[in-house]
Amino acid sequence: MDFPPVEEQLAVIRRGIEKIVPEQELAKKLEESRKTGTPLRIKYGIDPTGVDLHLGHTVPMRKMSQFQELGHQAVIIIGNYTALVGDPSGRDEARAKRLTADDVERNAQDYLEQVAKVIDIDKAEVHRNGDWFGEMSFADILNLTSKVTVAQLLTRDDFAKRMKAESPIFLHECLYPIMQAWDSVMIHADIELGGTEQLYSFMLARDLQKDAGKPEQIGVMSPILVGIDGVRRMGKSLGNYIGFAEPPYEQMKKFMQVPDECMKPYFELLTQVPLAEVEQLLAGHPKEAKLTLAKTVIGEYHGADAAEEAAERWTREISKGALPEDIPESELSSDQLQDGGLPAAKLLTELSLVASGGEARRLIAQGGAKVGEDKRVIGSHDEIVPLTDGELIWAGKKKVKRVRLT
Amino acid sequence: MDFPPVEEQLAVIRRGIEKIVPEQELAKKLEESRKTGTPLRIKYGIDPTGVDLHLGHTVPMRKMSQFQELGHQAVIIIGNYTALVGDPSGRDEARAKRLTADDVERNAQDYLEQVAKVIDIDKAEVHRNGDWFGEMSFADILNLTSKVTVAQLLTRDDFAKRMKAESPIFLHECLYPIMQAWDSVMIHADIELGGTEQLYSFMLARDLQKDAGKPEQIGVMSPILVGIDGVRRMGKSLGNYIGFAEPPYEQMKKFMQVPDECMKPYFELLTQVPLAEVEQLLAGHPKEAKLTLAKTVIGEYHGADAAEEAAERWTREISKGALPEDIPESELSSDQLQDGGLPAAKLLTELSLVASGGEARRLIAQGGAKVGEDKRVIGSHDEIVPLTDGELIWAGKKKVKRVRLT
Repeated sequence: MDFPPVEEQLAVIRRGIEKIVPEQELAKKLEESRKTGTPLRIKYGIDPTGVDLHLGHTVPMRKMSQFQELGHQAVIIIGNYTALVGDPSGRDEARAKRLTADDVERNAQDYLEQVAKVIDIDKAEVHRNGDWFGEMSFADILNLTSKVTVAQLLTRDDFAKRMKAESPIFLHECLYPIMQAWDSVMIHADIELGGTEQLYSFMLARDLQKDAGKPEQIGVMSPILVGIDGVRRMGKSLGNYIGFAEPPYEQMKKFMQVPDECMKPYFELLTQVPLAEVEQLLAGHPKEAKLTLAKTVIGEYHGADAAEEAAERWTREISKGALPEDIPESELSSDQLQDGGLPAAKLLTELSLVASGGEARRLIAQGGAKVGEDKRVIGSHDEIVPLTDGELIWAGKKKVKRVRLT
Repeated sequence: MDFPPVEEQLAVIRRGIEKIVPEQELAKKLEESRKTGTPLRIKYGIDPTGVDLHLGHTVPMRKMSQFQELGHQAVIIIGNYTALVGDPSGRDEARAKRLTADDVERNAQDYLEQVAKVIDIDKAEVHRNGDWFGEMSFADILNLTSKVTVAQLLTRDDFAKRMKAESPIFLHECLYPIMQAWDSVMIHADIELGGTEQLYSFMLARDLQKDAGKPEQIGVMSPILVGIDGVRRMGKSLGNYIGFAEPPYEQMKKFMQVPDECMKPYFELLTQVPLAEVEQLLAGHPKEAKLTLAKTVIGEYHGADAAEEAAERWTREISKGALPEDIPESELSSDQLQDGGLPAAKLLTELSLVASGGEARRLIAQGGAKVGEDKRVIGSHDEIVPLTDGELIWAGKKKVKRVRLT
């Protein structure tokens, strides 16, 4: 098997990745794999509790797909054992519901079908961890747990926080990361993919692999994808997600709500658009960049035509359709502009959209000042709002002026 | 089944016991048992790792025997499961050695044979906890561990100490007390016997019993029996033990080395001599009290004749035989005595065993001043040494005088 040069592989692997631990071992592992012609085994574990995937879930799966394209071996672990057990403490609602073996298997199949849109599922190994955990005796578990100390466990981020807050950590919760780490031993993982919150389990896997006399895995960790609110982690319960299976037009509407400052990570994590091209897009009009982002992502999962159609419909219905019939115009001299725009508060007063600088600041602070047909919120009163002829500036929901540059 | 009145039972149960937790529930449980004619189930767990029992081990077993005499049900748990596992971390040498099933069973039989000298083994239930732990799946263990928090575990005395000292606590060690507690659920324990260091597991058993909808057990905890050095817990590795299976004469010699101040707990914990009688004995000559103690304990396990013979041999060989052939005598006037004796330093100078009060203090501080045929060490220079006519006072190994009271 021929692999691309290590530097080339590293560039692909590193895109959009927040942390590689331990970073210095990655090149060595790739080198070794290339020399011996042995694909690396890339692990990703999922919990078949029956989730509708959203774009947050595609982040590590896209990385998996990139590893596949580099010639490495995808290994998917279906955590069917823990899903069958449920959360015995009943605190996590998703887990409290004890699923039947049939439920779990249906969820797993459903998951794999969705994931097949991101990775080459036919070339992936799929394992169910019930195959090994179902066989373990209490003695095996004593043996396994003898390799971990309580102090080590309490270094785990969320455990440390909960200890400090004196909120209870139940002992079975301490077993979950150990189980996840043991999966790595069982499937001989070279690399494990996941979010940065997985650091503890990833490192624990190294300890267990070392103890078992096997090569130690490297954690390749994605940052958290923020939701379309631009604030919190994308998640179903927060209502700030773009569902993987949502129709193109629903996805389009959600993409267009994403705050401008999130576009760069969205491009990095959700597309393969070359980073130089991303920079160019971001330097242009935000709406155009956002349309490109949305069309790229939607096109990948629903096809380019469906994406184009959704974009056109959005432009027609939301962007254009939402405008008042006749919009008053205000002239601004191009000479007045600073860096091609004006500070937000000044712009609002110049256009007589507000009565004073104070009113302008209050309005901006409340998020009531917006720009463009897609009503992008102005974040700060001293932010330079880029102006082109015909740009719309909003003060509140109804007051709007079109800028005429002279 | 007729049980003695509760107050009577309480008197028997409380003798020599350091802690009953929760104390207030004991009378209620006894009352209930008496009313319904149902014996209480008294649990005691042992580790069949192959120990020679010593008198320290007999303390809870004697309590068990007393419960049997009151009409209750002895339940012995053989911890064969953990013995088979061994200590996977290999830190505890006794446990590191992985025993075979045959070893464990041989140890268990050996233990039961020894224990049969203290309790009525024919009336006891004997369970092996491998019967339930051997059947448990990982899922069962997740379920069990979900009932315990890390914070709870860290309240356990020795865990708390180790956390503070930053010495590692391995996770499997956290499972041992949970296993012990689970035994209580499985055998429906009403009372568990053990040392005070067991408090954590005993209380954990209550939590698990409550969770399982069963009555909660009461912990009846003995104090630690100090060894014949009078300082540390009796233990084989410390060489300060009286072995259960040692010949009568060996036991006798060891008993006679026990410091005077230990006689009261020894009487309380190792004999049934009524406490009023113990007080009388302790008020008399220490050697006589110690001989009575030794003869009582040895007589119980080896028979009264063997005990008497051992006592006689000791008196002949050690007590009498160890004395120099002719001992110089010194007269003391009975008028001089304070509370029937003299302060130790003054006594040594009065008898001209030392040249000065300073020398007397130094000698006493070094433990070189002794009293009687059995050479009981004088602990403090201002301690009143009780004197009877003919008493021996030693200064160092060879200098000795016999007191003649006039």
